[in-house]
Amino acid sequence: MKLYDLELSGNCYKVRLFAALAGIPLERVPVDLLGGEHKRPPLITLNPWGEIPILEDGDVTLRDSQAILVYLARKTNALDWLPIEAAPMAEVVQWLSTAADEIRNGPANARLIDKFGVPLDKADTLRRSARILPLLDAHLAERRWLALDHPTIADCAVFPYVALAPEGGIRLDPYPKIRQWIGRIQELPGYIPMPGL
Amino acid sequence: MKLYDLELSGNCYKVRLFAALAGIPLERVPVDLLGGEHKRPPLITLNPWGEIPILEDGDVTLRDSQAILVYLARKTNALDWLPIEAAPMAEVVQWLSTAADEIRNGPANARLIDKFGVPLDKADTLRRSARILPLLDAHLAERRWLALDHPTIADCAVFPYVALAPEGGIRLDPYPKIRQWIGRIQELPGYIPMPGL
Repeated sequence: MKLYDLELSGNCYKVRLFAALAGIPLERVPVDLLGGEHKRPPLITLNPWGEIPILEDGDVTLRDSQAILVYLARKTNALDWLPIEAAPMAEVVQWLSTAADEIRNGPANARLIDKFGVPLDKADTLRRSARILPLLDAHLAERRWLALDHPTIADCAVFPYVALAPEGGIRLDPYPKIRQWIGRIQELPGYIPMPGL
Repeated sequence: MKLYDLELSGNCYKVRLFAALAGIPLERVPVDLLGGEHKRPPLITLNPWGEIPILEDGDVTLRDSQAILVYLARKTNALDWLPIEAAPMAEVVQWLSTAADEIRNGPANARLIDKFGVPLDKADTLRRSARILPLLDAHLAERRWLALDHPTIADCAVFPYVALAPEGGIRLDPYPKIRQWIGRIQELPGYIPMPGL
């Protein structure tokens, strides 16, 4: 399986992290993002959205880091990481939506602005972060992992851009439960870091 | 199964639409959104995020319309609507992410501003819509349904706020393939509309 990858991308790191934790081998293909490689053929043909990561596995091509996590979990039948019964699967999917919306448009975009100079509305990213991080902290006050009583792809999807929030000027000091959860993820067997963590 | 519901909410309608198409009975509990019922107990206890829909089924409580679609599909083992093999499930999940991010923060929020006076950045919603709608139209140029060769919960998740885009001042005239797809959904057996459609 081939992952079109960027070391500094939290979305790519979600996939690398889960693959490392679950012991799934990946071939990493570095993408020259600064050079715009993702906006030109062949990558723009693989993903017309002009984004990475992209996963290629035989004739399967996937964009969207959440969908790639689901693919890897189902392909390896990693039922602990993504159950297929209704309730636990839906619990996990709730957090995939959170990763796709609240985390991306909050701390992830704040980091894009501060670290890479992407012209987005900083106040908007801070407002969104100030809403989601307290909700996350309160949620984690009562449990060790986001979705179930053990780590799932929900944790892999939400973790990177929350842990990288300080690179977008967002301090995690006010969120002790989030910081403890970050620590628990970093202690998982097979954990790998990325720059900034 | 109890759905805390608002007739005018596209997120609630996603759930009602899929339940109607798949023949899943739901008990609808209308929520007084204007009166802030979702921000007070007991609803804020069911969903600390202060949003609807909320699904209650015995001791299962779910926020997030995408997760609720997954729950209903898995609970009824509706494998046509949500396969559990790796590739087709991931294809569907790609569009759940799109519904959660690009569609919500584009056409859905544009409608919140125009129809309900919610103070969000209109230019930002239009910019996001102008990116996602052409991508969606191009995608649908080559296929009849978003994810697979038949309707799935991906279509149910993306359809409402795309079809309601004109209520946010976004014309669908430039997107003939999207309009044909909307027509196909509206012809599905069991289809139900909502106000504005």
